[in-house]
Amino acid sequence: MLAEQKGINEECGVFGIWGHDKAAELTYYGLHAMQHRGQDGAGVVVNNGNCLTSHKGLGLVNDVFKYAPFHELTGDAAVGHVRNATEGSNVYENVQPLLFQSQMKSMALAHNGNLMNTDRLRNELESQGSILQTSSDTEVLAHLIKRSGMEVNEQSIAAALNQTTGAYSFLIMTDDKMYAALDPSGIRPLSIGRIGDAYVVASESCAFDQIGATFEREVLPGELITISAHGMESTRFAIRGQRKMCAMEYVYLSRPDSNVNRVNVHASRKQMGKELAQESPADADIVIGVPDSSISAAIGFAEESGLPYEMGIIKNRYIGRTFIQPSQELREQGVKLKLAPVRGMVEGKRVVMIDDSIVRGTTSRRIVQMLKNAGAAEVHVRIASPPIEHPCWYGIDMSTYEELIAANHSLDEIRDTIGADSLAFLSESGLEQAIVRDKTIHQGICTACMTGEYPVVHDKEKALAYKKF
Amino acid sequence: MLAEQKGINEECGVFGIWGHDKAAELTYYGLHAMQHRGQDGAGVVVNNGNCLTSHKGLGLVNDVFKYAPFHELTGDAAVGHVRNATEGSNVYENVQPLLFQSQMKSMALAHNGNLMNTDRLRNELESQGSILQTSSDTEVLAHLIKRSGMEVNEQSIAAALNQTTGAYSFLIMTDDKMYAALDPSGIRPLSIGRIGDAYVVASESCAFDQIGATFEREVLPGELITISAHGMESTRFAIRGQRKMCAMEYVYLSRPDSNVNRVNVHASRKQMGKELAQESPADADIVIGVPDSSISAAIGFAEESGLPYEMGIIKNRYIGRTFIQPSQELREQGVKLKLAPVRGMVEGKRVVMIDDSIVRGTTSRRIVQMLKNAGAAEVHVRIASPPIEHPCWYGIDMSTYEELIAANHSLDEIRDTIGADSLAFLSESGLEQAIVRDKTIHQGICTACMTGEYPVVHDKEKALAYKKF
Amino acid sequence: MLAEQKGINEECGVFGIWGHDKAAELTYYGLHAMQHRGQDGAGVVVNNGNCLTSHKGLGLVNDVFKYAPFHELTGDAAVGHVRNATEGSNVYENVQPLLFQSQMKSMALAHNGNLMNTDRLRNELESQGSILQTSSDTEVLAHLIKRSGMEVNEQSIAAALNQTTGAYSFLIMTDDKMYAALDPSGIRPLSIGRIGDAYVVASESCAFDQIGATFEREVLPGELITISAHGMESTRFAIRGQRKMCAMEYVYLSRPDSNVNRVNVHASRKQMGKELAQESPADADIVIGVPDSSISAAIGFAEESGLPYEMGIIKNRYIGRTFIQPSQELREQGVKLKLAPVRGMVEGKRVVMIDDSIVRGTTSRRIVQMLKNAGAAEVHVRIASPPIEHPCWYGIDMSTYEELIAANHSLDEIRDTIGADSLAFLSESGLEQAIVRDKTIHQGICTACMTGEYPVVHDKEKALAYKKF
Amino acid sequence: MLAEQKGINEECGVFGIWGHDKAAELTYYGLHAMQHRGQDGAGVVVNNGNCLTSHKGLGLVNDVFKYAPFHELTGDAAVGHVRNATEGSNVYENVQPLLFQSQMKSMALAHNGNLMNTDRLRNELESQGSILQTSSDTEVLAHLIKRSGMEVNEQSIAAALNQTTGAYSFLIMTDDKMYAALDPSGIRPLSIGRIGDAYVVASESCAFDQIGATFEREVLPGELITISAHGMESTRFAIRGQRKMCAMEYVYLSRPDSNVNRVNVHASRKQMGKELAQESPADADIVIGVPDSSISAAIGFAEESGLPYEMGIIKNRYIGRTFIQPSQELREQGVKLKLAPVRGMVEGKRVVMIDDSIVRGTTSRRIVQMLKNAGAAEVHVRIASPPIEHPCWYGIDMSTYEELIAANHSLDEIRDTIGADSLAFLSESGLEQAIVRDKTIHQGICTACMTGEYPVVHDKEKALAYKKF
Repeated sequence: MLAEQKGINEECGVFGIWGHDKAAELTYYGLHAMQHRGQDGAGVVVNNGNCLTSHKGLGLVNDVFKYAPFHELTGDAAVGHVRNATEGSNVYENVQPLLFQSQMKSMALAHNGNLMNTDRLRNELESQGSILQTSSDTEVLAHLIKRSGMEVNEQSIAAALNQTTGAYSFLIMTDDKMYAALDPSGIRPLSIGRIGDAYVVASESCAFDQIGATFEREVLPGELITISAHGMESTRFAIRGQRKMCAMEYVYLSRPDSNVNRVNVHASRKQMGKELAQESPADADIVIGVPDSSISAAIGFAEESGLPYEMGIIKNRYIGRTFIQPSQELREQGVKLKLAPVRGMVEGKRVVMIDDSIVRGTTSRRIVQMLKNAGAAEVHVRIASPPIEHPCWYGIDMSTYEELIAANHSLDEIRDTIGADSLAFLSESGLEQAIVRDKTIHQGICTACMTGEYPVVHDKEKALAYKKF
Repeated sequence: MLAEQKGINEECGVFGIWGHDKAAELTYYGLHAMQHRGQDGAGVVVNNGNCLTSHKGLGLVNDVFKYAPFHELTGDAAVGHVRNATEGSNVYENVQPLLFQSQMKSMALAHNGNLMNTDRLRNELESQGSILQTSSDTEVLAHLIKRSGMEVNEQSIAAALNQTTGAYSFLIMTDDKMYAALDPSGIRPLSIGRIGDAYVVASESCAFDQIGATFEREVLPGELITISAHGMESTRFAIRGQRKMCAMEYVYLSRPDSNVNRVNVHASRKQMGKELAQESPADADIVIGVPDSSISAAIGFAEESGLPYEMGIIKNRYIGRTFIQPSQELREQGVKLKLAPVRGMVEGKRVVMIDDSIVRGTTSRRIVQMLKNAGAAEVHVRIASPPIEHPCWYGIDMSTYEELIAANHSLDEIRDTIGADSLAFLSESGLEQAIVRDKTIHQGICTACMTGEYPVVHDKEKALAYKKF
Repeated sequence: MLAEQKGINEECGVFGIWGHDKAAELTYYGLHAMQHRGQDGAGVVVNNGNCLTSHKGLGLVNDVFKYAPFHELTGDAAVGHVRNATEGSNVYENVQPLLFQSQMKSMALAHNGNLMNTDRLRNELESQGSILQTSSDTEVLAHLIKRSGMEVNEQSIAAALNQTTGAYSFLIMTDDKMYAALDPSGIRPLSIGRIGDAYVVASESCAFDQIGATFEREVLPGELITISAHGMESTRFAIRGQRKMCAMEYVYLSRPDSNVNRVNVHASRKQMGKELAQESPADADIVIGVPDSSISAAIGFAEESGLPYEMGIIKNRYIGRTFIQPSQELREQGVKLKLAPVRGMVEGKRVVMIDDSIVRGTTSRRIVQMLKNAGAAEVHVRIASPPIEHPCWYGIDMSTYEELIAANHSLDEIRDTIGADSLAFLSESGLEQAIVRDKTIHQGICTACMTGEYPVVHDKEKALAYKKF
Repeated sequence: MLAEQKGINEECGVFGIWGHDKAAELTYYGLHAMQHRGQDGAGVVVNNGNCLTSHKGLGLVNDVFKYAPFHELTGDAAVGHVRNATEGSNVYENVQPLLFQSQMKSMALAHNGNLMNTDRLRNELESQGSILQTSSDTEVLAHLIKRSGMEVNEQSIAAALNQTTGAYSFLIMTDDKMYAALDPSGIRPLSIGRIGDAYVVASESCAFDQIGATFEREVLPGELITISAHGMESTRFAIRGQRKMCAMEYVYLSRPDSNVNRVNVHASRKQMGKELAQESPADADIVIGVPDSSISAAIGFAEESGLPYEMGIIKNRYIGRTFIQPSQELREQGVKLKLAPVRGMVEGKRVVMIDDSIVRGTTSRRIVQMLKNAGAAEVHVRIASPPIEHPCWYGIDMSTYEELIAANHSLDEIRDTIGADSLAFLSESGLEQAIVRDKTIHQGICTACMTGEYPVVHDKEKALAYKKF
């Protein structure tokens, strides 16, 4: 099965800026703030009003930009991207933004999300004589725009987007305009900010704080924003459905200091912990969280339950991509990598261990075992989100039923598998209450991976294929 | 003034292992766990019973060992070191362990701490015809050992150590023995552990957890441990004074999961926060901590005060040594680096901001300003340790009165300087109570930098020199 | 003006191998032998019968392949390329072979030469909805093949080539075939060899010697070779004109040990020197050559004239791309770079200095000056080829009249400009006699840059454009 | 056997400059010109009149200086070194110049040659309490200077040198003086030049030409030069013996454009070729040389014999240290590395192959085989120096009788071993005549490796040891 069929563009971050003479540098800082959304590749395309210039590479933002020739990356507009690659797709060619130089109008594209019907679109394009050079959804969109009318403008972009199915945020830049588009259900996040007179667009608001920009508003479902010398204009390219922001953005994807759809992520996580403490209390001595994404929920659980919050697990801050893996022999002798238990905290204690979610169950099993080895008397696992029983079609790297422990096992089986003394998940209503606290803002969230209620319907045969593999 | 006079070896970490066929690899993992103690250089010397082989370099443990030829670093004993360099001393030559190959007996040395009388010792050695090639205290000790008797053994090491004044832990390895020594006041930490039949020695117990070793005991003040094929033996090279473990190891130096002198660091910090909440409560809405070292104290303060603990400041996890600094212009426009405020948490709130200590005051001022810019209504700064009014002679990088804001300004002046609405420090007794909870273990702690009561007396003229510059 | 209009693919080297289980490694060695043809980028695409895998990068062959994962580059067929980039085109995207993955049939292309009508072809392709992502002629051909029939086969390749005008050698590989094509005038070199049962194709025969292959024959003008499991087949895609091998391949481009169109390059150069000595003798003491490409001609001149050949100029072998340039001040003080005079040889002597050609004249002036500074009494410059008075349209990096000193100045003016005591060029007939010694092999050579007689006619408007800039 | 006993400092190059404000940069260029003398490490120590600063590293000059902070390497005096390491000694610590910082007077040392009695000297120094940290002869001298009187001055340097036995050139720099010393027999080369008012000292005169300096004179045997603000002074530290310049400097070590002891190296080599043609003519068609060091001799042979000189062997210019070695299988299939035969030149020809010397015979055998494989009808090997029958004690990497083919085999045996049709060596008198053409300059040359007549006598037991291993 080809990588693109599994949706290779998940969990990325996009950034755009228009009207600032330090466009490339601010893009660098903005990408840096969104590093957690993708650590496999990063890039920027800068626009000096005349031509588009690209700088990109594999690896972390800092590695890619360490020797970046900022003096050559001049221009007052730029788009940037951080990329999380799926297995086999981690090659330079796929690093975004993709830049298409042309004797007519050049364009750069950056994308977060997943187009579900790219197999069919690719076949059509190739049979019409197009040559696609990457396995990226973004390149498919570029070809669709080109086919939809030779010009790159609102009409051709809208026409191209309407041929796709999926969840996405797109940034598209030509020499005189920048476009930002969000899928009709608004599943992926995309916000607009201002810094002085300049416009900024980013997947997460933490990028605005990083560069000193202020939040303006969210891009709306099915909206196509055009930014140019004439300011910002808005059109709608699709019938706007109810906004269904991806729940996993709150559960673990976004940075705690970001506001996603105007809800602070840390606050929503803390609230998940509180709801969880009400729903599934535990008779225990201390509450601990699995760093980093579960700390907020653990603090909420502790506050609500009255149990003390302790630092029971430590995450090594210096582990990079180049960490030398211990041999199997050393691993068995107890050499640990990323996470270490704090023996002095957990020894002899009945521990509530808060985690954000369980996908395969393997990590949870390892952590429970680690805590027990460090002397924990009991380990009560509390998960701050409902069980994940369905694959995601919208850009999260969980694409098959097989890999999901909750799709194939009962609660008791999972508890036994991970070796916990007790196990409870947050309810769907608890999750919703923790996130959707103002119905005028939030029309709802996408919980397809938990409920199977997919806001965007898949091709029938494709859906079957998903089941199959 | 030469670097060595300012004590260049502060805040390092040492690691040794004897009797394990994966000695070099375990040293790598052990150093990795202690990466926070020194990020400027790392190295290992491995011993195959016949010769000593060195691998070292500038930078992080991972960078140094990325391409390490582990297949050549064979042997069942090793010593390792992570180094925090002072300005001007960050050169390859100073990276430890230092290895002295000889036609007679080779030796490797690793050191954490500061020898106070190296100026005089260097003059003596040079006037006797010795050539010193680094600015490292460690090399001075090697020469003293060589001068104290041609053999490297308990006698010559003890004689050499007795010529030095200061606070230190030393690991010394020859082809048939490993020695571990601690200063007579036990100011610096050094623990012994076991992994299977092998012995492990490390500055911090987190290194034991990392490799699956178990804690055995602390090295005692003035003790010289000898490990060889005949097991472990202990001698005393100096009259043992009262153990005065460095308080700053608890305040910020050590990792929260380490036990220092059998007291868990996270627990002591949380207790500091509780004591602080009792001593200096604040009329506020939320409690936040400055990541990473102040989080434990902030949670303690929150628990004790009943105020909610919130994530008010975020630390970017991906900042490395190579981070590209924003230009002054961008900095003024609000581009932030390591720390970012969580606007959604602090906006409109009266905030208690917990920090571990104040040295120069510049960081505190910046963070307070950042919180106010993010909308905090009030910022009440609470410091989880007493004011630092005296330089450290024992290996912490605070060597002059000039640089210490608390040595030169009143509490009110400091509060105004950092822009806080109120400011309070933990009392000395509060600090002591938080750390020393079992008098049978702890005879006391070194609080010289707070009280001026130096457990080890300096040369008179040198003490004056310290005052002067 | 865009880079592609100036012909960016000049002076490259292509290599292909079919039927050898060490295809990738032999390609590496073959490219290494042709390193002189391009030092800006190198790459290989290997074919395991099922899929095509690429490894490429900027820089020298060794730099690109230093960490190449040869264990992953498995397959028994491969194409490779070394690239000489023109200014502004030296980016990763342009490094060849270009690999076009497809859901249908993937293909890899490598090219040496220049297509003259790519501006028009690009416009046509883009207006039909194609997206071109590089400034490479090679990509244009890929699109033409795709447009000429959806299959990649003899017919579609022939149809594509017939839409182009220029001088070129192309290697095209799909999962089951390798194609080699040469322009109808045979301006660029391309040879076929054998190593065991395997076929090899390369720009220069020195690549065969490097890997132990034997020369089989030249690819003929307008010939399209197909190599597959069924062996080698030949078709003709264009009416074959008289073969007009580029004279500059003999003058300086090819390696002296290569046979180009069955004439040894060193031998032809030596003969040029001999012809030159007969045509334009000099009253002098010694003969010297400018390393490396003029040494053979200098030896020929010496042998014919009876003057001793001496090593009057030394080339520093260790100068790489990273050489630190001396400041202007140091340059004026005499700091030299690549070439150094041998004072002991030239001091007080009347020197015949042989060079292969003069393009701009700046290098010649510098060398003459250098020799005079080193004490040469007289410097008689003899050029082993006729004056270059016309731009090259076929892949040599001399694309404008402006840059050619001989297009704008008389012989006497050139002599004065370079500061020589006398100056003579080899005559056109002398050049032809030195190269074309067997009329049954050589129907002629392309001397367009000397004579203005272009064997392939350019678009009219394009020709004018060339004149203009 | 330890590396230092085999003389690790052979075939290095030293460079010094005093009184030029671009001292570090000129040292870089000077070292670059002498890159052929050592490719394993390079370094510079620069002197700003106050302190000495070092920059050095493993690898080529360009690699070491690529990112050199020249703006920090300020000062108007510097010493530099290029190093050729013997097996096992290629570590950073051994890279020169060695810099010994001291609270008293710092000094930097650079060395070319070999001290023969360092084993004994090291034992003495260590037994007196000294610690040696490298396996370098240079460090031994530093300790001897330190022991010979605490000051670094003419007296202590002379006293130190007089404790050593061997062949050497030393550069020693303190903050106010630079010293240059040559062994009493003047076996190694060392010249003095001027550039403006500045003094330059270098192993080879090509370094002067590179930077635009002019040759002044050779340093004399047993002479100690002192350069300071007061100009240059000369003293003699030892009774001056007859100068016996190392013959191998002419045969292959030095660059052809250098003058060694005022004799041009290219000219002497060409003369060796002429003498060889007179002594041992060959009935053949062409003369070829093994690049690079044998080309001059081959041209001389051709001129004298009347046979044409042809380019029969090509050396690949792009082979670096990182070249990927072909597997044994590929090697057997004919993949070549550094040298390639020019089939078109040698096929069917009776070839005279000139090489500069034969040490082990393995290279010669490979080249002869390569020529025969390329079709040479006969290969007549002519060596432009006498057979090497004795180890060198003075710094050339031939330290045992075992490794020398001529020490263990007759002429006929060698001829058969290398597969030549005939073989002849230049006679000793022929060599001497080619080099020593002016008896007022040259009192003689060191031909110890050919004749066994060692100008400097070794310790008796050491001499026996040499024989033994």
